[in-house]
Amino acid sequence: MKQLIDKAEVLIEALPYIRRFYDETIVIKYGGHAMTDAELRASFAVDVVLLKYIGLKPVIVHGGGPQIGRILERLGIESTFVEGRRVTDDQTMDVVEMVLGGTVNREIVALIQRGGGRAIGLTGNDGAMIQVTRKVLGGRDLGRVGHVERVDPAPIRAVAEAGFVPVIAPLGIDEAGLTYNVNADEAAGAVAQALEARKLILLTDVEGVKGVGGKLLSRLSAEEARELIAEGVIEGGMIPKVECCLEALEGGVERTHVVDGRILHAVLLEIFTDGGVGTLITP
Amino acid sequence: MKQLIDKAEVLIEALPYIRRFYDETIVIKYGGHAMTDAELRASFAVDVVLLKYIGLKPVIVHGGGPQIGRILERLGIESTFVEGRRVTDDQTMDVVEMVLGGTVNREIVALIQRGGGRAIGLTGNDGAMIQVTRKVLGGRDLGRVGHVERVDPAPIRAVAEAGFVPVIAPLGIDEAGLTYNVNADEAAGAVAQALEARKLILLTDVEGVKGVGGKLLSRLSAEEARELIAEGVIEGGMIPKVECCLEALEGGVERTHVVDGRILHAVLLEIFTDGGVGTLITP
Amino acid sequence: MKQLIDKAEVLIEALPYIRRFYDETIVIKYGGHAMTDAELRASFAVDVVLLKYIGLKPVIVHGGGPQIGRILERLGIESTFVEGRRVTDDQTMDVVEMVLGGTVNREIVALIQRGGGRAIGLTGNDGAMIQVTRKVLGGRDLGRVGHVERVDPAPIRAVAEAGFVPVIAPLGIDEAGLTYNVNADEAAGAVAQALEARKLILLTDVEGVKGVGGKLLSRLSAEEARELIAEGVIEGGMIPKVECCLEALEGGVERTHVVDGRILHAVLLEIFTDGGVGTLITP
Amino acid sequence: MKQLIDKAEVLIEALPYIRRFYDETIVIKYGGHAMTDAELRASFAVDVVLLKYIGLKPVIVHGGGPQIGRILERLGIESTFVEGRRVTDDQTMDVVEMVLGGTVNREIVALIQRGGGRAIGLTGNDGAMIQVTRKVLGGRDLGRVGHVERVDPAPIRAVAEAGFVPVIAPLGIDEAGLTYNVNADEAAGAVAQALEARKLILLTDVEGVKGVGGKLLSRLSAEEARELIAEGVIEGGMIPKVECCLEALEGGVERTHVVDGRILHAVLLEIFTDGGVGTLITP
Amino acid sequence: MKQLIDKAEVLIEALPYIRRFYDETIVIKYGGHAMTDAELRASFAVDVVLLKYIGLKPVIVHGGGPQIGRILERLGIESTFVEGRRVTDDQTMDVVEMVLGGTVNREIVALIQRGGGRAIGLTGNDGAMIQVTRKVLGGRDLGRVGHVERVDPAPIRAVAEAGFVPVIAPLGIDEAGLTYNVNADEAAGAVAQALEARKLILLTDVEGVKGVGGKLLSRLSAEEARELIAEGVIEGGMIPKVECCLEALEGGVERTHVVDGRILHAVLLEIFTDGGVGTLITP
Amino acid sequence: MKQLIDKAEVLIEALPYIRRFYDETIVIKYGGHAMTDAELRASFAVDVVLLKYIGLKPVIVHGGGPQIGRILERLGIESTFVEGRRVTDDQTMDVVEMVLGGTVNREIVALIQRGGGRAIGLTGNDGAMIQVTRKVLGGRDLGRVGHVERVDPAPIRAVAEAGFVPVIAPLGIDEAGLTYNVNADEAAGAVAQALEARKLILLTDVEGVKGVGGKLLSRLSAEEARELIAEGVIEGGMIPKVECCLEALEGGVERTHVVDGRILHAVLLEIFTDGGVGTLITP
Repeated sequence: MKQLIDKAEVLIEALPYIRRFYDETIVIKYGGHAMTDAELRASFAVDVVLLKYIGLKPVIVHGGGPQIGRILERLGIESTFVEGRRVTDDQTMDVVEMVLGGTVNREIVALIQRGGGRAIGLTGNDGAMIQVTRKVLGGRDLGRVGHVERVDPAPIRAVAEAGFVPVIAPLGIDEAGLTYNVNADEAAGAVAQALEARKLILLTDVEGVKGVGGKLLSRLSAEEARELIAEGVIEGGMIPKVECCLEALEGGVERTHVVDGRILHAVLLEIFTDGGVGTLITP
Repeated sequence: MKQLIDKAEVLIEALPYIRRFYDETIVIKYGGHAMTDAELRASFAVDVVLLKYIGLKPVIVHGGGPQIGRILERLGIESTFVEGRRVTDDQTMDVVEMVLGGTVNREIVALIQRGGGRAIGLTGNDGAMIQVTRKVLGGRDLGRVGHVERVDPAPIRAVAEAGFVPVIAPLGIDEAGLTYNVNADEAAGAVAQALEARKLILLTDVEGVKGVGGKLLSRLSAEEARELIAEGVIEGGMIPKVECCLEALEGGVERTHVVDGRILHAVLLEIFTDGGVGTLITP
Repeated sequence: MKQLIDKAEVLIEALPYIRRFYDETIVIKYGGHAMTDAELRASFAVDVVLLKYIGLKPVIVHGGGPQIGRILERLGIESTFVEGRRVTDDQTMDVVEMVLGGTVNREIVALIQRGGGRAIGLTGNDGAMIQVTRKVLGGRDLGRVGHVERVDPAPIRAVAEAGFVPVIAPLGIDEAGLTYNVNADEAAGAVAQALEARKLILLTDVEGVKGVGGKLLSRLSAEEARELIAEGVIEGGMIPKVECCLEALEGGVERTHVVDGRILHAVLLEIFTDGGVGTLITP
Repeated sequence: MKQLIDKAEVLIEALPYIRRFYDETIVIKYGGHAMTDAELRASFAVDVVLLKYIGLKPVIVHGGGPQIGRILERLGIESTFVEGRRVTDDQTMDVVEMVLGGTVNREIVALIQRGGGRAIGLTGNDGAMIQVTRKVLGGRDLGRVGHVERVDPAPIRAVAEAGFVPVIAPLGIDEAGLTYNVNADEAAGAVAQALEARKLILLTDVEGVKGVGGKLLSRLSAEEARELIAEGVIEGGMIPKVECCLEALEGGVERTHVVDGRILHAVLLEIFTDGGVGTLITP
Repeated sequence: MKQLIDKAEVLIEALPYIRRFYDETIVIKYGGHAMTDAELRASFAVDVVLLKYIGLKPVIVHGGGPQIGRILERLGIESTFVEGRRVTDDQTMDVVEMVLGGTVNREIVALIQRGGGRAIGLTGNDGAMIQVTRKVLGGRDLGRVGHVERVDPAPIRAVAEAGFVPVIAPLGIDEAGLTYNVNADEAAGAVAQALEARKLILLTDVEGVKGVGGKLLSRLSAEEARELIAEGVIEGGMIPKVECCLEALEGGVERTHVVDGRILHAVLLEIFTDGGVGTLITP
Repeated sequence: MKQLIDKAEVLIEALPYIRRFYDETIVIKYGGHAMTDAELRASFAVDVVLLKYIGLKPVIVHGGGPQIGRILERLGIESTFVEGRRVTDDQTMDVVEMVLGGTVNREIVALIQRGGGRAIGLTGNDGAMIQVTRKVLGGRDLGRVGHVERVDPAPIRAVAEAGFVPVIAPLGIDEAGLTYNVNADEAAGAVAQALEARKLILLTDVEGVKGVGGKLLSRLSAEEARELIAEGVIEGGMIPKVECCLEALEGGVERTHVVDGRILHAVLLEIFTDGGVGTLITP
């Protein structure tokens, strides 16, 4: 009985967090190990389903690197990268769209449904939802890589209000109706802004944002984050993630998180504990 | 971190139960030690608030014995009892109504609100909700003691749909508009039927229903319950409780429970564990 | 037939008033003789029911002086008064809450239902509706007497929109969840403001507000009222009533009335005649 | 003050009737002296407006005899009658439609609006509402006189739900879209059935239905009415009125009334007194 | 098959126009030859019905000149005109109301219904919808001729939202409840403003607005129109039509059209072709 | 002008068909040449958009044969067929899902959006919508090929009610959450039943169903169709199409069509002409 009461106490401890986030939209960028490791996948699925049942509104935006690479390879198509972003020629884009929309997105929908929820997959060209222009990075053309200009929340809302968890593949379309590859972090940030989300959670394969001496920072203001980038403390692949958070904060999202997706139930722990499990970046 | 993940696992374990009872009405008869012991009171309050937040619809019906007796005594009014039910003359009834509606009901509303919820107190004469006739027990008149004829769910629904936890004092009114004392178990059962509740939970000061040799029965069919009463195994104060469950089952309530209210978080444990903490009586 | 036609003419005369107040909220402070005299009680009840049926939205806020005093006396608890307001120590507060919420409020609900309406009783701690701070009057602590800071109209609206007449006991709660006694006139004024009521009617045991030489004033502007208080013409127990009206006017209530509750159908006459029966105070 | 209180009592006396008919549809056939006498017209208008304001749903169906005759005469068109019904050739029909829809209907709309209500005029061809076939009476063709086959309540409901009193001219259309003259009593009865009205009131120029020896019958069952027709006691122009009531009763209308429209406030007296002012025919 | 495909192409060509005007209100002033010629009448009816079915919201305001004159003549009533507007004495007004509301309005309702739609006729005194003051033109009293002060859109919306095409006779009422004759173009313009219509179409018996040398102008800005009036190029009966358009444009209507109603399907061609069939006047 | 009026006449001719199908769901199985030929693709897209705008509710279910084969080939995966249905082993299924959901479905969404509409792509595992069991055909296991057991219309309705055209890839999931390939005709038929569609249109690469001597049958009863199958007149690939129609008819779909998708605007012609362009099969 003692053990049961302890369990009840855990539920009770969650109450203030449930109350705080009740009916709020939480956008989660899903990727990395959390998407490839079987145990982490299962733990992610039940986390999302639990959030949905206790009254929060989770929205998933996923990446898709490894699968795309594998199919490109099998089809004998080679890629080049510029600053960590794939240069996407037309035949690569066909594969990107096929794999993101037809494999990765589908698997996550199935995953959440096996976890007991109901999900609907969307891509950025459903309802012309993620509107992009061609991205130019440092003067170099990346091909069919899009810069998000605007997200129309209508398709996501239609799906969420009917009781489904929206699972979004990071594709965009331009004015001419051409599809583009979009960075998943960037897509997640733009979706969070369009939905006026309370929280944006980026699941990553690192512990969080690190400060001087490689020390994990559990909390960071936007200003501090900008300084750390300027000083070169935040560097490499972490820069676009932090910038994505900064932009979301400017767009009205209240709290943004860089979370260690390699921990079981990382999403739940982030939402239901005071410290969280990674770095919180606030306005 | 291990400990945090364990906590997350506890939340996850609760998921199937949340799913099962989502959006369902649960009527809880609140009384006994759970209502007098400070720690149990606090644990009851957070249980109710948690249920509300995770999407269930708790409705509280309370008793009020000790407080009534105390005030009667201080006012120098004496009472007689017939088969455990107070004979309620007119001046006693005035005190019953005053204490149930003005003290006990108010305290429970305040208790739930301190626990973080929002509650509204009702008594059976609000909206002429609990309609009764004068009860006659074994040929003996019990005075202003009512037998519930019908419960109009409209006032309870108005309150619940506006987001409040209804807290109901077991009073009834007859056709002439006269108020009556109603047994709290009986009121809870009738309310559960009127609301087409999924569950009726009677909090008691015993472990549950006991079978031959005083062994706690964790599960019982209606038929078995009737036999045990006939055989005299279920006896004394437990008889009306079990009969109240049987009637609720006939009225369409799916599951009824006689639960040990002396355990911390008894309500939560009943709903979120397989075995529960007392006796389940099924149709 | 002549007599019947005369009766029809009376109904017709009421038409412009019905039209004027259609769908409007009217808050009535109920107290004094109107609450103790049997004939006046009955006339009040049918007045309220009639208002409800012809499309107005009456909300009742009641006082409760005599009954509280009587029970305090029977329980041997003595009270002291400061400027006409009871100093409320903790044990007195228990009695105040018990009697206001459990006896007086219940009786008014029953009264309106016997008159053919449907009512639901509320107290200021239902849904933490009447939020107060501890009142300090002229440097003297009055104990558990509250100053209304804010009224949350949600519980009243839930009840009124479901078709019931809300009957409100003047209790308040502070941030810590402690209950307080609130002056009924003050509570009625605050409720009228929160509901954006069209009219606030204070039933009293005097003819109305009197001017120089004790002459009844049938109409008064807020400015004139303030001058009469400053000049000492309005004095004694009438001051808080007039101040309550003035505050309600500032809060957006259109018309406030100090009405002679000793007249049969005082509420109806106030609403359905040009002159009204007492003093109208306008912005 | 005494006189005022007496007036309040009259309002209070009306309460049980208001309660009984609250939100119910009352169809009134308006014609005869009540439509031509200035004082009766004004009294009718305020009656209707009062009904509307206190929560009933009056629907007016009017006749139009005298005005049609006058215009026909001025235009030099002669008519013949069969059993009290005008034989309506095509040019007569043009005048009937013009006068009923353009003059009489318009005047009643204006009349109710001068009385303080808001009304919208409809004719039976609005929305193809009153669907008729050509009536043949005793083998004689009456020309463009319609027998009501079906009433579509949609146009009446659209107008009533938007807060207007529907005023209906008794015209019908057949399958080919041709308009027909319809007896106003018959139209009122059919409208009452289509709207599932609680009451049908036929305003006439007689005291009511008379029995043996010309004695006014204040109440009559459908069976008794049929017997009195069979025995020739009910005769002449009263027969179609009573038959219209009988048919409405069969169609589900609860109460039908033949009322003396020459009395001031006949409609109000009918609804708000026990005896009423004419003859009640019940199922 | 070729011919069928051509037909499909025509439907497809209409698509951008359908898209542009979807769910928009289009007010059409109906009068002149389009109302008297049998073939034009039928073509107008199907045009309106088609608009309704493909998701636009047509509202018809009609004139009624010839029919009024004919009945006045048959009744031996003579009229005088001031600047093309009939001086309307009281007996003339009776005829105007009778003919507009009882004949012309009814015929258009029947016409649209024969075309497969469902219509409801309204006049400006239904629901006191078209509120007017007495018009004075150049110091000369025109009798019962109204100047539109305000249009209450509620009756039109009630009818349109219930799925009917509103057909409005241009009558108005003043504050005293007296009815007035209103110029149909003026009424249509005021109705278009009150409904915040997207388009106002005036069907006329001319090709459109003509410029210098009598050349048809297919498009005109408000400023150009004002200049052409000032220069005397736009003259005679066209002046009030153009002024009506100008006022509607100021009132927020997006596009106004003077269209040649003598062309078959003029309404459809105006809406579904780029050039339209007459003169477009824009802000 | 003549030409314009002719065009207007074509629109008018469409009116009865618009009226007939207004607000009705039309399920279209899209496949074959209509999906591969550029001109047919464009004509299909505008047809769908037009249907949507004029008030019908088109739902698209597509096939995907050629693209799947092409990718399988490029990946070096070989397939075997049983009775025209692909035997789908696990690695084939991965490709099927990827191509149907990620390429074909996406292209049709983009196609409709380029045509001016707004579309959202769904696959049968979104919301666990198309529930299947493993199909066994003539004792031979086809691998991951599903037999549709039930379609949950909720995801389709959510998307359609938000104003988007649902585009559905024919995948299904079984109870264990495993995805299956579903025949597109079968999926379309099941979707039509679940949505209680008015019409099911199967776009094919033949003229329609042919009778004795290869003569095109423009209309066929269910009974006749069954006889023609029994007699061997309907044979080969046409059998499953006709059987799909028969099943839809039994499931309550009113009309089913086997239409020649090689004709421009085949969908529009089917809906807007009397004869249609293929074979109508009725109950």
